Amino acid sequence: MTTTTSARRALVVGTGLIGGSLGRALRARGWHVTGHDAEPTSARRALELGALDAVGPGVDAELAFVATPAGHAAAVARRLLEDPTRPPELVVTDVSGVKAPVVGAVAHPRFVGGHPMAGSEQSGIEGADPELFVGATWVLTPTADTDPAAYATVAGVVASLGADVAALSPEDHDRLVAVVSHVPHLVAATLMNAAADGARADGALLRLAAGGFRDMTRVAAGQPDIWGDICAENAQAIVAGLDRLLADLAELRAKVAGADRAGLLELLRRASAARRALPAGATRPDRLAELRVPVPDRQGVLAEFTSLARDLDINIYDLTIAHSAEGPRGVLTLLVGEDHADRLRTAIEDRGHPCTVTTLT
Amino acid sequence: MTTTTSARRALVVGTGLIGGSLGRALRARGWHVTGHDAEPTSARRALELGALDAVGPGVDAELAFVATPAGHAAAVARRLLEDPTRPPELVVTDVSGVKAPVVGAVAHPRFVGGHPMAGSEQSGIEGADPELFVGATWVLTPTADTDPAAYATVAGVVASLGADVAALSPEDHDRLVAVVSHVPHLVAATLMNAAADGARADGALLRLAAGGFRDMTRVAAGQPDIWGDICAENAQAIVAGLDRLLADLAELRAKVAGADRAGLLELLRRASAARRALPAGATRPDRLAELRVPVPDRQGVLAEFTSLARDLDINIYDLTIAHSAEGPRGVLTLLVGEDHADRLRTAIEDRGHPCTVTTLT
Repeated sequence: MTTTTSARRALVVGTGLIGGSLGRALRARGWHVTGHDAEPTSARRALELGALDAVGPGVDAELAFVATPAGHAAAVARRLLEDPTRPPELVVTDVSGVKAPVVGAVAHPRFVGGHPMAGSEQSGIEGADPELFVGATWVLTPTADTDPAAYATVAGVVASLGADVAALSPEDHDRLVAVVSHVPHLVAATLMNAAADGARADGALLRLAAGGFRDMTRVAAGQPDIWGDICAENAQAIVAGLDRLLADLAELRAKVAGADRAGLLELLRRASAARRALPAGATRPDRLAELRVPVPDRQGVLAEFTSLARDLDINIYDLTIAHSAEGPRGVLTLLVGEDHADRLRTAIEDRGHPCTVTTLT
Repeated sequence: MTTTTSARRALVVGTGLIGGSLGRALRARGWHVTGHDAEPTSARRALELGALDAVGPGVDAELAFVATPAGHAAAVARRLLEDPTRPPELVVTDVSGVKAPVVGAVAHPRFVGGHPMAGSEQSGIEGADPELFVGATWVLTPTADTDPAAYATVAGVVASLGADVAALSPEDHDRLVAVVSHVPHLVAATLMNAAADGARADGALLRLAAGGFRDMTRVAAGQPDIWGDICAENAQAIVAGLDRLLADLAELRAKVAGADRAGLLELLRRASAARRALPAGATRPDRLAELRVPVPDRQGVLAEFTSLARDLDINIYDLTIAHSAEGPRGVLTLLVGEDHADRLRTAIEDRGHPCTVTTLT
């Protein structure tokens, strides 16, 4: 517990896999980290493992990460933001896997919803890894009410942990993770259960489970307990994803039963090409361009630009705001694919903001 | 091409990923390997890469591996077995992923159907790997007509490449691989296509594809072209597997839509426990027992014991036959889980064969 008084101070509420990894990652970058957990033995273990500097309420923290089970995140975040003993500039973020319900329930300018797209089959503090977020996409979900300074704080810290920040609306986040995470996870569990049932009838079955089956079911080994909240909070998008999958699989079944070799081949070729095109790290175009826009430093400015990009179907790969020392103005920087830069600049200028584009090579 | 005349001689027909890996693995163990391919440039490349000693028909081979596309395997195997210029003791095996159609079409005592449960997203000779089969389960599918000596040859060679031999009937193999390989592969392709479609509408989608999604769709990157044959030849089992999956997913959808948190948790906990119990290598019980049975060395003897074990729901982890020098008798050795050894011995003795059991520790 040797820390200088000048260290930035963070609070981590919930010291499981993500909270513990956050603690270790922040401490490795010079932060002083206080934490607590509903399960006091977990917090003590986090302290022992070097994920925390201290166990306690961390009232002097400038930034709080809420890494509790998702069902508690909104209440914990609100309590922190309404606590009169804490600094009035306290910024709070969370890590829960469904964003719209949490962001809607907290509804505070200094709350920035977040979701690090990193995890492992590990769970609990024992699996905590300071490098867990390196190269991972970390979604932040600013809204029209988000304070740009609070967003900039969270985005900067998250990026300093090695994550690749993506700004999305809470609703877009929830719809997209249903497709790439929630539905696949539920399918993995379903395939695993079918195989386990089959193995009870036929002991040889699991001997035939080669690498492909192991890969496909790996996520099913993860913490089951978080999925009650996820399925409850993202039910609509998950049901839509399952309906799409049921329709696709029924079509596939018809192709197999009908010996539609050409149709099957087309389906599998398309999937093979798409999977091979899936890049190893976070997905970015090869060439990026940076747009710089002087903007008034006020609430709503972030959401104005994220929703503009969204309407144009343009991905924002990074978004930062630098505050001017001379008054309530700042400079917004948007990182987009080079192909889309001119289209976005035109739209921004049409809204009365000057905008410069630099291609990054 | 420096080989001694005493080297055992193998033929590999089809020099893709599996054929090329076989050539390299066999050569590493002292075999002389001749090979050819419908695509002559592939065979020449196999020679260049050291997967073959020679390109040609390999008429002096004692053992032939048919590693062509599955649709050609039966015809190639029959042609080899009926070729009067080849040794009358030639043993032929194949590597195709669906066994009953091939085994039924060849229907020859010196043909032993095989399926190495190893592969990779790689395809073609460039991905050939002499260690591909180490630790992999390699299913062999003897029938009532299989010559025990032919089976012993194939099982011995396959085991020498590092594979773990499993004896199953062709029909059981096909039913089980539908559950652990074919249906999961088709599901991976379906999930990948849904995500790719989603990404066209929403470029941010694939940025959210974290490790779990990558794991689940990895197999979809594999060679699409082999799946036309697999889906055609194993259509019945695949359709049954898809029907089971459709029913399971419809039930899951009802749980999500109905906010059945307890039901979802039960499903996910069961899957998590089953996945964690899935061992890293081939699945064997901790304690094995060896049964030794003196048997007449005649056709049908292998199938008699494999079907007896199957009727008793007992897994055979290894099966070898040693021939007596004194006449047409041999000793059959069966490796089973210790828990089942006494039950199997009783059944064998009931059929008039003496049987001894040794527990392996």
